[in-house]
Amino acid sequence: MGRFGLTAGPRAEAAQPAVLAPERWLVHRVLERMRRPPVGIRLWNGEEVAAGEAAAVARVVLRDRGALYRLLLDPEFQFGELYSDGRIEVEGDLVALLEEVNRRQLSGGRAAAGLRRGPLNTLSRARANARHHYDIGNAFYRLWLDEAMAYTCAYFPREGLSLEDAQAAKMELVCRKVRLSAGETVVEAGCGWGGLALYMARRYGVRVKAFNVSREQVAFARERAAAEGLIAQVEFIEDDYRNIAGRFDAFVSVGMLEHVGRRHYRELGAVIDRCLSPSGRGLIHTIGRHRPTPVDAWTRARIFPGAYAPSLGEMAGIFEPSGLVVLDVENLRLHYAATLRHWLERFERSRDRVRAMFDERFVRMWRLYLSASIAAFTTGWLQLFQVAFGRVTDNGVPMTREHLYR
Amino acid sequence: MGRFGLTAGPRAEAAQPAVLAPERWLVHRVLERMRRPPVGIRLWNGEEVAAGEAAAVARVVLRDRGALYRLLLDPEFQFGELYSDGRIEVEGDLVALLEEVNRRQLSGGRAAAGLRRGPLNTLSRARANARHHYDIGNAFYRLWLDEAMAYTCAYFPREGLSLEDAQAAKMELVCRKVRLSAGETVVEAGCGWGGLALYMARRYGVRVKAFNVSREQVAFARERAAAEGLIAQVEFIEDDYRNIAGRFDAFVSVGMLEHVGRRHYRELGAVIDRCLSPSGRGLIHTIGRHRPTPVDAWTRARIFPGAYAPSLGEMAGIFEPSGLVVLDVENLRLHYAATLRHWLERFERSRDRVRAMFDERFVRMWRLYLSASIAAFTTGWLQLFQVAFGRVTDNGVPMTREHLYR
Repeated sequence: MGRFGLTAGPRAEAAQPAVLAPERWLVHRVLERMRRPPVGIRLWNGEEVAAGEAAAVARVVLRDRGALYRLLLDPEFQFGELYSDGRIEVEGDLVALLEEVNRRQLSGGRAAAGLRRGPLNTLSRARANARHHYDIGNAFYRLWLDEAMAYTCAYFPREGLSLEDAQAAKMELVCRKVRLSAGETVVEAGCGWGGLALYMARRYGVRVKAFNVSREQVAFARERAAAEGLIAQVEFIEDDYRNIAGRFDAFVSVGMLEHVGRRHYRELGAVIDRCLSPSGRGLIHTIGRHRPTPVDAWTRARIFPGAYAPSLGEMAGIFEPSGLVVLDVENLRLHYAATLRHWLERFERSRDRVRAMFDERFVRMWRLYLSASIAAFTTGWLQLFQVAFGRVTDNGVPMTREHLYR
Repeated sequence: MGRFGLTAGPRAEAAQPAVLAPERWLVHRVLERMRRPPVGIRLWNGEEVAAGEAAAVARVVLRDRGALYRLLLDPEFQFGELYSDGRIEVEGDLVALLEEVNRRQLSGGRAAAGLRRGPLNTLSRARANARHHYDIGNAFYRLWLDEAMAYTCAYFPREGLSLEDAQAAKMELVCRKVRLSAGETVVEAGCGWGGLALYMARRYGVRVKAFNVSREQVAFARERAAAEGLIAQVEFIEDDYRNIAGRFDAFVSVGMLEHVGRRHYRELGAVIDRCLSPSGRGLIHTIGRHRPTPVDAWTRARIFPGAYAPSLGEMAGIFEPSGLVVLDVENLRLHYAATLRHWLERFERSRDRVRAMFDERFVRMWRLYLSASIAAFTTGWLQLFQVAFGRVTDNGVPMTREHLYR
């Protein structure tokens, strides 16, 4: 067999200008490797490789020969790069395409073995990682997030809820899970633009210290606290969760664990153990996996450097070494898909403004990231865990979870 | 210093007959090692060692010199042995005494390192273990369990519920968590006396295959199925969970995992993966720990050979290697304390009949086991996890848990 498997390839068709027979054969190998999703491919000369019924969901257009070769060498990383650069185009439903690909990977083999230890997120690295993503500019996020600027999974207890209402429902659910009462103190690790901290102060009359390493987010959050007259109740601190000091009645962290990195879980557990009062309650809300799996190379490089989404077994590494015990886990996977659909729709409505702020490459990169995230949650590729926990010795835990649903 | 620390011991008191000064010193060392619980000790000659306020909760009576020495050499195992033999007596509240001891151990250092791999529960060993405990005789368990003979944690959503109602509430909660609907098929791994299998068939119109290796329990369950006219719907199979064959809409296992042993979790996960339909739901209800901890030597030897109560991190070893994902975890620790209080009260009411069936040693052994279990749950020494799970690809999961509380 020749290097490109000429003799084993499909029989030669009439030669098309600029597409070589081995290239056509390679395209089929790519499709096979992806377990033949219902996706067509159009090559740079207009030639269709898998058309008709087989291409029911979408068509991938490879705009140049180099795109094919790059895709072959490193599909996980290069698909994102080539799509961002416009060298790959997708005609049809991008989310549906990614869902089909995910499904085939999930129903296929087992997870990659030999996970690395995960990123070492030192204090300065953690700050740089956060800035990479969150300091893009508040104006950008304002274009497509809800009014409260919640950039985490919302909660849709009823169909047809607006994004605003679903984000409020999420904040309410978190507050109920940690059983806040007026006058208590709360520490928040990774507070984003401050929406939850302000909600807790406003609705529950608690005092909050909210930590975040993103300068832009903290500045925004402080302005909101001032505008709402909540400065006496909510303090936003531009610092790392590892520098939390003091004792609190509750610890909450919504959407930060993804940036902690699994080799720091024990350290995070020690921070919580140190700052939680004897009857303290806690909650961590995080993207997760059904088993240990690395973040894909493109997302790690372009979207979330230093990120890691843990399995529940890995999260046990936060709680078990300390005197903490898990009281309640809820998997809100499909809520994140619903949240992301809102975001993608708003993003597309604002894409001209995004392009004016940045460029076309940025628009395509973010479209892919949001679309791939929807597909990841709808196919079970990603999970969303809300884990409520407490002290192992605390008998003040309610006997049922009915209070969450009143 | 002499072998018994004579020179470092407390100053000599007036010698009492048959209690040597070094022995008195040893008693103090025992109390210190236990971090001075508010417990008095009376020695075999009537001498009180820690009396007054210090003995607020209970008094431990050591009836002979040998009891002291055995307790020193191997307290974990020997306390149970000596109590069962009547060589240790407890005056006052046995449960409160054990709670005080647990609390001090929990607030002290970390868990023992170097966990062994856990018991190898082969098919024949698993059968022998089950018979050790469950084949004591149905007549015995009838004396103090509820009518449905549920020998697992009940659910007390309201205060003052009877044991019968709380066991029914538990069964209902399990059914709701796995979302049964009429005509579906369920497999139950470790079905005890069949209460849950019959409940599911009766209330939800499902067909159940229920596995159990205890001959006495299976015989009893079959009689009940016949009496209730449910033979066409419920099949009780005297066999190991590893021999489950077929495909089912739901997998439930209430109180069996404790007997599986952690080195068999992956195997259990493979069994579930094999027998669960693509939209199948599952639930495991088990005693657990807040971190990996071995079962104490006495319980392992006398009550539950081959038993192991896992941490949530260890339970991940069931789900993560298969295509299963955790959807919901609820920690019902305090419900087990409430359940056990009912059992202990009923047991004490029947103790004369238990003694007539067995002997005084058996009565004392079971009193200690039930009391120690209450103390373990009230102090956080043990947890009770209900873990609901499903296929990672199943999007039929309800958006909220409200349906559990209607």
